[in-house]
Amino acid sequence: MSTEQETRESQLVDRVVASFDGTPDPRLKELMQALTRHLHAFVREVRLTEAEWQQAIAFLTATGHISDDRRQEFILLSDVLGASMQTVTVNNQAYGDATEATVFGPFFVAGSPEIPLGGDISGGAAGQPCWVEGTVTDAAGKPVPHAKIEVWEADDDGFYDVQYGDDRTAARGHLHTDADGSYRFWAITPTPYPIPHDGPVGRLLAATNRSPMRASHLHFLVEAPGLRTLVTHIFVRGDELLAADSVFGVRNSLVKDFQAQPPATPTPDGRALSDQPWSRVRFDIVLAPAAA
Amino acid sequence: MSTEQETRESQLVDRVVASFDGTPDPRLKELMQALTRHLHAFVREVRLTEAEWQQAIAFLTATGHISDDRRQEFILLSDVLGASMQTVTVNNQAYGDATEATVFGPFFVAGSPEIPLGGDISGGAAGQPCWVEGTVTDAAGKPVPHAKIEVWEADDDGFYDVQYGDDRTAARGHLHTDADGSYRFWAITPTPYPIPHDGPVGRLLAATNRSPMRASHLHFLVEAPGLRTLVTHIFVRGDELLAADSVFGVRNSLVKDFQAQPPATPTPDGRALSDQPWSRVRFDIVLAPAAA
Repeated sequence: MSTEQETRESQLVDRVVASFDGTPDPRLKELMQALTRHLHAFVREVRLTEAEWQQAIAFLTATGHISDDRRQEFILLSDVLGASMQTVTVNNQAYGDATEATVFGPFFVAGSPEIPLGGDISGGAAGQPCWVEGTVTDAAGKPVPHAKIEVWEADDDGFYDVQYGDDRTAARGHLHTDADGSYRFWAITPTPYPIPHDGPVGRLLAATNRSPMRASHLHFLVEAPGLRTLVTHIFVRGDELLAADSVFGVRNSLVKDFQAQPPATPTPDGRALSDQPWSRVRFDIVLAPAAA
Repeated sequence: MSTEQETRESQLVDRVVASFDGTPDPRLKELMQALTRHLHAFVREVRLTEAEWQQAIAFLTATGHISDDRRQEFILLSDVLGASMQTVTVNNQAYGDATEATVFGPFFVAGSPEIPLGGDISGGAAGQPCWVEGTVTDAAGKPVPHAKIEVWEADDDGFYDVQYGDDRTAARGHLHTDADGSYRFWAITPTPYPIPHDGPVGRLLAATNRSPMRASHLHFLVEAPGLRTLVTHIFVRGDELLAADSVFGVRNSLVKDFQAQPPATPTPDGRALSDQPWSRVRFDIVLAPAAA
């Protein structure tokens, strides 16, 4: 590239950055100036053609047009570019053995049913029974009594209750840890499902030979006074989708052994499952300090 | 930042980049991997908060929702971030004295009226008459006969003809250079106008203390066989908006002297303008080779 060309490109970046110098809010100024630098670095590095620029405009427009109160295609786009997971990572700094966070996802619903310790969150959702147990401790290993645990997951058909549109509540609930920080409940063994892929983001995944599937997972949201709220999932060891999760939510530390239990294996709480197989998993949760 | 935190963030980038490894089209693969690196670099550098991420999602969604067949807010967004101008710059490499390109804008209309050399493109648009003259040459200085020149501009009220929605054609036309590469026509003296600023992009400009105004300009599109098509504007020396053009279209080399002519100054072609003031400007156009 000629010096003149280099000068034209870099002076343009400088002019755009300077245009934000008068922004009253210092954080907005920082964000817009950094966005400008990174956006221009991308355009310059790839030597974006005008046809590609037009395709980008058309893609963003279609992504906006398909989004409404029920569907958020820009969140999906952020998800499949790993930007959602990177934002989560940046906002949940590593702290000792504290359990890692992952993406929140769009399917949490406030006001889930409260279930007792050892109760069943499945609410009739189709799926193989799964016994989930563990402890909640702080980073020093001290048990956290009465921590609130929200859990939610898709059913065997790959749908969350809210996706049925019929007001059912299933495969979600909340409970509190015991006085010794332990918890236990019945759920269903997680199974994989695709993110919505009939829109622009789905076409992007198809064009790049990527799968829309999410690795099987069970969502957790754990809250306790003085401790950092944890939003995470646990994943199923052996799931072939672990390395190809469409939203990059998998962390090795969150992959757990869901131990398959043959039919007639006695259950931890004596629940009768007749001749059904079931599974069990242990997930010990460590919460960072709120200020960390 | 701890080593563990740094590792989590950079490994995530690596995983997202690798997810595009199987993209069949090598150019799409290059674009997506570069986009991933720059997007994550932005999120990590500014330590984007989850609230800011949500605001970004809401902003993009609103930008999509206001866009339709008549309004393209994503193009406006690209314009005010200088991404449109950077794309133009990247795709029109500096070549000797070749005239610099600038943004195309949304107001070009194919099929403009043909006017003779020395004719008037104003078509009744309100504005002060302006005599425009110059030559079209190649980069070696050789005149380009019969080059096609399209010109278009806003009227004195700041509107292009197509913005009135009444099928008028005004302040646009095309002509061809003479056998000696020269051209001349009557237009109107350019005046400033704002880009549409009643949507999300307008709110962004307001929040960052930026003006929506475009510096006064006259659009040119110049085509000749074997030469690079030129899309550009000329700007008015002395216009106070030159340093604050909302879409960063100004290049110093495109700022021209529009010489004010007092009422009763004889016109170049003997046109009678009674007691109106008028202006004149010279714009000598140099076209790069098509292959440059």
